[in-house]
Amino acid sequence: MQVNGRDQTTIWYDHGIVSIIDQTRLPHQFDIIQLTTLEDFCQAIRTMQVRGAPLIGVTAAYGLALTMKDSPSNRHLESASRQLLATRPTAVNLAWAIKRMQATITAIPEELRFEAALNQAHTIRSEDIETCAAIGQHGLAIITAHQSTLSSLRPINILTHCNAGWLATVDWGTALAPIYKAHQAGIPIHVWVDETRPRNQGSSLTAWELQQQGIAHTVIADNTGGHLMQHGKVDLCIVGSDRTTARGDVCNKIGTYLKALSAIDNNVPFYVALPSSTIDWSIEDGIANIPIEERDVREVTHINGLDSAGNISEIQLVANSPALNYAFDVTPARLVSGLITEQGMFSANKASLQQLQQQLNKAGSNL
Amino acid sequence: MQVNGRDQTTIWYDHGIVSIIDQTRLPHQFDIIQLTTLEDFCQAIRTMQVRGAPLIGVTAAYGLALTMKDSPSNRHLESASRQLLATRPTAVNLAWAIKRMQATITAIPEELRFEAALNQAHTIRSEDIETCAAIGQHGLAIITAHQSTLSSLRPINILTHCNAGWLATVDWGTALAPIYKAHQAGIPIHVWVDETRPRNQGSSLTAWELQQQGIAHTVIADNTGGHLMQHGKVDLCIVGSDRTTARGDVCNKIGTYLKALSAIDNNVPFYVALPSSTIDWSIEDGIANIPIEERDVREVTHINGLDSAGNISEIQLVANSPALNYAFDVTPARLVSGLITEQGMFSANKASLQQLQQQLNKAGSNL
Repeated sequence: MQVNGRDQTTIWYDHGIVSIIDQTRLPHQFDIIQLTTLEDFCQAIRTMQVRGAPLIGVTAAYGLALTMKDSPSNRHLESASRQLLATRPTAVNLAWAIKRMQATITAIPEELRFEAALNQAHTIRSEDIETCAAIGQHGLAIITAHQSTLSSLRPINILTHCNAGWLATVDWGTALAPIYKAHQAGIPIHVWVDETRPRNQGSSLTAWELQQQGIAHTVIADNTGGHLMQHGKVDLCIVGSDRTTARGDVCNKIGTYLKALSAIDNNVPFYVALPSSTIDWSIEDGIANIPIEERDVREVTHINGLDSAGNISEIQLVANSPALNYAFDVTPARLVSGLITEQGMFSANKASLQQLQQQLNKAGSNL
Repeated sequence: MQVNGRDQTTIWYDHGIVSIIDQTRLPHQFDIIQLTTLEDFCQAIRTMQVRGAPLIGVTAAYGLALTMKDSPSNRHLESASRQLLATRPTAVNLAWAIKRMQATITAIPEELRFEAALNQAHTIRSEDIETCAAIGQHGLAIITAHQSTLSSLRPINILTHCNAGWLATVDWGTALAPIYKAHQAGIPIHVWVDETRPRNQGSSLTAWELQQQGIAHTVIADNTGGHLMQHGKVDLCIVGSDRTTARGDVCNKIGTYLKALSAIDNNVPFYVALPSSTIDWSIEDGIANIPIEERDVREVTHINGLDSAGNISEIQLVANSPALNYAFDVTPARLVSGLITEQGMFSANKASLQQLQQQLNKAGSNL
């Protein structure tokens, strides 16, 4: 997508160095940082300089590839994989990307591993771009269909939670990809952006993305979506997913479940956009079986922003009280209107997702 | 209740001066400020140095009383009432208190008005304390009954949204009054405190209140309650109300509706604690008929806290995006398990509330 009018992706490789956008500085500063050591990669994922399930997967793939340059042994591969896996427990793409990299690497002699691993990381990166573009195309059909039911030529109002935009992937994004495609197709759109406490990925990343792309949007507190839906101000919800189960339960940023409840209570369609690589085929009941990452309570008790001197600084919100910080929740499949994947639209139930699985198997996808 | 171990109320009169706690400085600073002019009172309400439906009513009453000292004319009474009414559009107590003060004031000659008005304000203040204590007592019965159903001697987990504690009233609070009564009765309690964006009344006021009273609590992002309820970590919700309709629709801090949806989806009882003075008997459908206050978007785009130098300072969260800031939403009566009033428990429906109304009429209450 565009940053200050120039084409940009979230991660790229050039002459032995991987570059990323430091997403912890947005929207106030646009900084590119370079990753070379394994610890650079682990820290970038852990501290959320990169975040979003798909981008985490691509970053881990490059991390494993680069670490093969000087130490291509199986032992080192295992240890590096373990370190990368430990950075974020919930996103299934991390394990998926690492497994795929391991399969490539272990199949060939040590002296060929770096190059092969790098090529595989490039492939994962390219596939992510293609996948997101395809999600955008399938989601565009939903937006177009919905817009045609609106009585006037007013913009279609879409609510999204957290950031599932191009910053969460390599390009295009998942939940925002249909919005970008619709905008390019000339459909008038307005996006309600949940600020998404405690890390404010909505107000800092999604709002920034939309502003850079010139798409009308409004930042709201996470508490606001229900009221807007009660008053007919939301036509459609589209969110992303960090892990989706075989029956369509959706694990996404904490608070997604509350918006889904509100959507169903107000007859607002609630769509989830996801690459099929984020589906965990081994799990059905997401509430019982997906481990939910607990993050540092400092994300709740403190917050970053731009101070009056123009520096990014931290202030304390909570004085002397304990806090708790779950990063994700699970939206049961019964609340999900549909799953927008790169393979097309699927219903959030076991039978429909089995068709997707067959489609993927037929396509010989790397599952 | 207690502040630093000493008894404290939120508003008191002494020798021509009304003192309040500046609630915009909590939890970082405990400042008492003095109100003398009408503009002092209007600003205190408008800038939320005092907030919470009951406390707003008491503050407005004192504001009207003090303004009668030098200008006891009807014309001045009307103009002062208008100015006070304009400070916050949603809370019904404001209008209720002003109407009651007007009735007292207009009934007597100008030279007696100041003293009579002051006495009426004192009465409203005392009644508020009694009312909240009674709400606490009736709510205690609910907590006790619920705790007896818990299988172990673990604390009962109660979730609350925003601040409906003693800081929102003169003393005791509404939603927190049952919690204080239960704590005093030796019932082990743990409170989940929604931080309550955008103004963070939960993390700054409710958390501070509970900490000062020595009650176990944990601050969470507003997004978190649904996940906790899905996992059996919330036994009961108790929230306050800024305005309740004749059929039991509840207008309360934005986001309350989302918690009520989650409570019903997880079989968690959802109670609303309110003085009967916050019931608007003229309205049934709260979603259609309660005007929702839109506040300054700066509450969403910026935030206050303690900086590294120990000063309360403001940082900017949103860079170049528009924002929207609705202060309240409406929870339909169908999601409310019960209304805890000073007159006892009532169901959130028209028939039950008509009984309350009859009870109030019989008691000769000043409606």
